[in-house]
Amino acid sequence: MLQKLNTNGSSCDRQRWVKSNKRLIGLKLSTERLFYFWCLRNAVRQKPVEKQCMEVNATRPNQAVPPVSVILYYESLCPDCRVFITQQLFPTWTMLQDIMTVTLVPYGNAKEIPSANSPFTCQHGEPECRGNMIEACIIHLTGHTAFQIIYCMESSVNVVNAAQPCLQLYAPSVSWSSVDSCWKGGLGYQLMHRNAVMTRALRPVHTHVPWLTVNGEYEEENEDKEMSSLFYFVCQLYKVRMVFLVTGTPI
Amino acid sequence: MLQKLNTNGSSCDRQRWVKSNKRLIGLKLSTERLFYFWCLRNAVRQKPVEKQCMEVNATRPNQAVPPVSVILYYESLCPDCRVFITQQLFPTWTMLQDIMTVTLVPYGNAKEIPSANSPFTCQHGEPECRGNMIEACIIHLTGHTAFQIIYCMESSVNVVNAAQPCLQLYAPSVSWSSVDSCWKGGLGYQLMHRNAVMTRALRPVHTHVPWLTVNGEYEEENEDKEMSSLFYFVCQLYKVRMVFLVTGTPI
Repeated sequence: MLQKLNTNGSSCDRQRWVKSNKRLIGLKLSTERLFYFWCLRNAVRQKPVEKQCMEVNATRPNQAVPPVSVILYYESLCPDCRVFITQQLFPTWTMLQDIMTVTLVPYGNAKEIPSANSPFTCQHGEPECRGNMIEACIIHLTGHTAFQIIYCMESSVNVVNAAQPCLQLYAPSVSWSSVDSCWKGGLGYQLMHRNAVMTRALRPVHTHVPWLTVNGEYEEENEDKEMSSLFYFVCQLYKVRMVFLVTGTPI
Repeated sequence: MLQKLNTNGSSCDRQRWVKSNKRLIGLKLSTERLFYFWCLRNAVRQKPVEKQCMEVNATRPNQAVPPVSVILYYESLCPDCRVFITQQLFPTWTMLQDIMTVTLVPYGNAKEIPSANSPFTCQHGEPECRGNMIEACIIHLTGHTAFQIIYCMESSVNVVNAAQPCLQLYAPSVSWSSVDSCWKGGLGYQLMHRNAVMTRALRPVHTHVPWLTVNGEYEEENEDKEMSSLFYFVCQLYKVRMVFLVTGTPI
């Protein structure tokens, strides 16, 4: 249970630890656990966060530390959303999925008009409404391969036309007809309505897309970093959580 | 020409610089340029490399510093190659393509038997020979979208069957028939023969795949890092080059 730490020898020298922590040894926590926490805290302080992200967190995450949770509010044909998904979010998640969860909410700046023939109108027209609905259905029906399929669509030349080939490439056991009847029918409407409710519930209210919440919060001062250096940002956030949880003190 | 540096104030305090470098000011280099180099060296020493990679290098690469060049020797159905391409090489390149070039050489552990009916035999059988050839043709025919297409294939459920849909998704202007006639004909053989020659020319001789050279060299002691922390590794390498080139001293 005590993870093997990738630390330099001096920060985890047991004799040195015993000498500087005699008062702690009297406490109920086992010596082994105390040593582990002390070692970890020193290791975290000494190593650059990103190296640690690669060597400790991303491949051997600390089970006591919850992953960084990211929710992306977007619309399927928005150019900035496509760039963010394909050049930041998906590659970052590919490499850091041990310490990061991603939830995709396709809806964005759409409007819901329940009484109309078409219950939704979208910023980039009807093709975007169709793209949003198809993606919502794919997310619902394909489970863990969903993000790969959404990435495939959003990175291709034609997002909506890519849906069927992308589904076939990554989830051949899910039939296109199940996605087709989803987006054309009641299930698709329910999924999109749920996304609309989630998007309208945002506080602060979203003013643009892509819109990102991290661990449930939108913070304007972090937005630039999130959009252009997401890998670094997630690593740093995870490290801060880890140190706080094991030592009780922020770094 | 002098880039705006993202440094903290203290390392780039001009008065402090003048005080500590009076002897340099007499040299022919302009004061401005000297100040820039000094500031950069201090900035590099103070900031974690990966943060710098994100904030300085990856988005505003130094034009005087050549990108890190990576050549991957692989075979199309080798599981470790697929994992490396999809979970390390492609996402890293996606985010760091301003400071990194990737060359793909599909051939791997294949053997060339020029006199036989089938000039190549492959570790994972005939489907792999077909996959290698198709990928070589796609790389030759599609230019800058090649890596996206190879990624699409290597990440899908069936690599060889994915070739045509992946080509259509990312390079619809390149006809499948041009790829088809390439891999079945003389051009495909020439491309694969060239890959065979490149692979056989490796020094040291390759003993497994995936096999990576970085800036033309294979270094065994770096292999673990390259395979599991490629993002960090490329950033660090680029930074070392940059500092060496601007200051003349390694860090």
